[in-house]
Amino acid sequence: MSKEIPTREEDYSLWYNELVKKADLAENSPVRGCMVIKPYGYSIWEKMQAALDKMFKDTGHSNAYFPLFIPKSFFSKEASHVEGFAKECAIVTHYRLKNDENGNGVVVDPDAKLEEELIVRPTSETVIWSTYKNWIQSYRDLPLLVNQWANVVRWEMRTRLFLRTSEFLWQEGHTAHATKDEAVAETVQMLEVYAHFAEHFMAMPVVKGLKTESERFAGAEDTYCIEAMMQDGKALQSGTSHFLGQNFAKAFDVKFTNKEGKLDLVWGTSWGVSTRLMGALIMAHSDDAGLVLPPKLAPIQVVIVPIFKGEDQLNAISEKVAGIKAELLRKGISVKYDARDTHKPGWKFAEYELKGIPVRIAIGPRDLENGTVEVARRDEKTKETIALDQLSNTVERLLDDIQQNIYNKALALRASKTTTVETYDEFKKVLETKGGFILAHWDGTAATEQKVKDETKATIRCIPLDQPDEEGKCMVTGNPSTKKVLFAKAY
Amino acid sequence: MSKEIPTREEDYSLWYNELVKKADLAENSPVRGCMVIKPYGYSIWEKMQAALDKMFKDTGHSNAYFPLFIPKSFFSKEASHVEGFAKECAIVTHYRLKNDENGNGVVVDPDAKLEEELIVRPTSETVIWSTYKNWIQSYRDLPLLVNQWANVVRWEMRTRLFLRTSEFLWQEGHTAHATKDEAVAETVQMLEVYAHFAEHFMAMPVVKGLKTESERFAGAEDTYCIEAMMQDGKALQSGTSHFLGQNFAKAFDVKFTNKEGKLDLVWGTSWGVSTRLMGALIMAHSDDAGLVLPPKLAPIQVVIVPIFKGEDQLNAISEKVAGIKAELLRKGISVKYDARDTHKPGWKFAEYELKGIPVRIAIGPRDLENGTVEVARRDEKTKETIALDQLSNTVERLLDDIQQNIYNKALALRASKTTTVETYDEFKKVLETKGGFILAHWDGTAATEQKVKDETKATIRCIPLDQPDEEGKCMVTGNPSTKKVLFAKAY
Repeated sequence: MSKEIPTREEDYSLWYNELVKKADLAENSPVRGCMVIKPYGYSIWEKMQAALDKMFKDTGHSNAYFPLFIPKSFFSKEASHVEGFAKECAIVTHYRLKNDENGNGVVVDPDAKLEEELIVRPTSETVIWSTYKNWIQSYRDLPLLVNQWANVVRWEMRTRLFLRTSEFLWQEGHTAHATKDEAVAETVQMLEVYAHFAEHFMAMPVVKGLKTESERFAGAEDTYCIEAMMQDGKALQSGTSHFLGQNFAKAFDVKFTNKEGKLDLVWGTSWGVSTRLMGALIMAHSDDAGLVLPPKLAPIQVVIVPIFKGEDQLNAISEKVAGIKAELLRKGISVKYDARDTHKPGWKFAEYELKGIPVRIAIGPRDLENGTVEVARRDEKTKETIALDQLSNTVERLLDDIQQNIYNKALALRASKTTTVETYDEFKKVLETKGGFILAHWDGTAATEQKVKDETKATIRCIPLDQPDEEGKCMVTGNPSTKKVLFAKAY
Repeated sequence: MSKEIPTREEDYSLWYNELVKKADLAENSPVRGCMVIKPYGYSIWEKMQAALDKMFKDTGHSNAYFPLFIPKSFFSKEASHVEGFAKECAIVTHYRLKNDENGNGVVVDPDAKLEEELIVRPTSETVIWSTYKNWIQSYRDLPLLVNQWANVVRWEMRTRLFLRTSEFLWQEGHTAHATKDEAVAETVQMLEVYAHFAEHFMAMPVVKGLKTESERFAGAEDTYCIEAMMQDGKALQSGTSHFLGQNFAKAFDVKFTNKEGKLDLVWGTSWGVSTRLMGALIMAHSDDAGLVLPPKLAPIQVVIVPIFKGEDQLNAISEKVAGIKAELLRKGISVKYDARDTHKPGWKFAEYELKGIPVRIAIGPRDLENGTVEVARRDEKTKETIALDQLSNTVERLLDDIQQNIYNKALALRASKTTTVETYDEFKKVLETKGGFILAHWDGTAATEQKVKDETKATIRCIPLDQPDEEGKCMVTGNPSTKKVLFAKAY
């Protein structure tokens, strides 16, 4: 079959790339580093967006839209932002094409050069804080809780569909607060929102933690993150929430009159997740037969395939299916009935396995006689015969069960691939033989962090929030440490 | 009051600009020609998006996402596309910044020049058809019904919030079909979707028609449009649907094997509406006190304002309001209760008038005694006292009534400002004294069309679909004409 993909065992990286393409999720575009998100892939992203957007609104945020372009000078205003932020970005220098005098299509009009170059936003703190200056005068204007769904561009030399592309889609929340405590609480709240989304919608367990200073967002005082383990044991950073302190308020002079009538700088946060989550979703659960989607994010939760010979049989089945479909829809379950006669049932089974549809119902003439259907679950690839009058309840329960089961499997995998080590030798051995997450003591210095990275390619993913304080010695230097941190190789 | 806006009579253009800003819809950004869509404005756009998106999906379309950037050479592939399309666009020439050696922030790295410049998409036909080439092999792959919600950039010298900005948000549908008939049917279907949306959601009557050849989309064989009348009598093009023939299939070599096994070029359509609709919505209905929103697009349909002195009165009112709010929410009506004690009721009344909230409920201690509330409608600025047990039914009916009433008012205005003329003298006189839409015979030539435009600034908005065929003589040249066409000055 042309849609076959390599196994994870054979080549995990190729398995991922091929799966993304064969399952119609995304493909490379004619523009280097940019992807096309295909309709099926986009429909999963829409489910993610809807769930996240609801959570943002339930926590008091509103959406808005800020410009795609940022004047170059803005990037120089926040010192560590310009210093730390990657300078690979798309730069607009001209605003007009003209017909080539030699008839070779169009050329850039040299007379249409911009006075100041514009940068296609890699992130929007600068342009948003320059706007907030006009929106915030008094404590009554705070908190300001705004989110934006947008495309951003960070020029990447090596790209991979969803995981690292020059253009990607994301949401970026940007909030302003009267006090430090409020801003910190917001930062943590949004981390919790992301963790909840990852675990309850994506069925993907995550470690919540703080980034080390060297991994922090440029311009932030603290960066919180969620880290997930992929099936190959590598970590994937799945969302970040930054406490910005008063850094951007200082850079853009955003002050407010507090309740005591005094002028004070505003406190800020920003937080984001992106289409990278699509990559995480795929790599967390899928198998050698294709995608495995959590029911809560599956655009189609149930597919019904008729097994028939000739039109009469099909008509009899379709009549029965109409009732089944209506009953499932009433329960809020999304259903597709694939009655095409251009494809055989076996082809359809493989296709919907590849696409990760959580539940498949097959119904043939014998089922009609017996008042049954065959129900197959994608996650375990098991099937059973169910009486029609039990069907909608069974499917409803099955969807919940699949959601929980793939979470449990991912959790078990993570547990089996998380190791606590005491020495650097042990660390290197585990990394080489088993991989996965490693908890170890670290002396808190950037030098040690860098040494481990250089020597092993593993990085400190985060300082886990739930890791208990304990006296210990750094596995590398032997210097004192108060907490184990999480190391892994990462995407 | 600082939020006062000029009247329409005084200065229609300034009234619009100030209303957009004072009602918190949008503002100019630090980037020339680009706007910031503020949370309240964006929440209206979200209502528009949701309604349109549902209609697109109900007619079989899926969303997808294509790159922001288009290689410059793509624009030269479809001859009339490059010829006719505005060449004012944002051009990316470099992909890296670097720290200035003299310490003056960042500068463009001259070593990071792109081999081929990238254009920020002004519209996506070229990049999408280059992708469709790989998606379409057989008639089984057709029709391909895809829509994209995206930002686009067309460099504009004179910009106005929502009406004409360098960056704007829109949706662009791009479909591919096996036959001409199917593609034409799709083009007309999407025109009908737009017209339905304009009339039933925006409460804005529209004229459906065909653009003349000179106003056609570059690369289209036919451009259908909907044209609405603003309160000043000017026309605003509110949506277009293009029949592309096989032009883009030819340019990008998109062929399919038809049912007979023969290779054939694919037929195409594209269609779009943008944040320009926000401008149309504002100008179609609003008055000197502020926005008037149709209930179906109002983010908040009902606001409840308590009239109270002291905490005891507020508590008693709030208790009653909780029940009212719950009952309205149960009916699917969105409600805001503004119990702030930092603002007086009069201030709130003015604020919610400015924001266009369709229904305002005021409730004070005497209402509590009498079991009544005061209900005010934004469109007519009338109010009445309603018994509490009648309230939710009254509000529900009132919202329907407001939706219908503002449509009727817009329709009546359009009728009163539409004139049929026979001679060019009459035409010029009507245009000067009364403005509005003018129906007149035209000889079908671009020369005459241009002459009228040069001499009067009026353009042919469209050849209306519902205009009957009739023998006549062009008002300018006296040459034969078969149909009256619609002229107007336009935004």
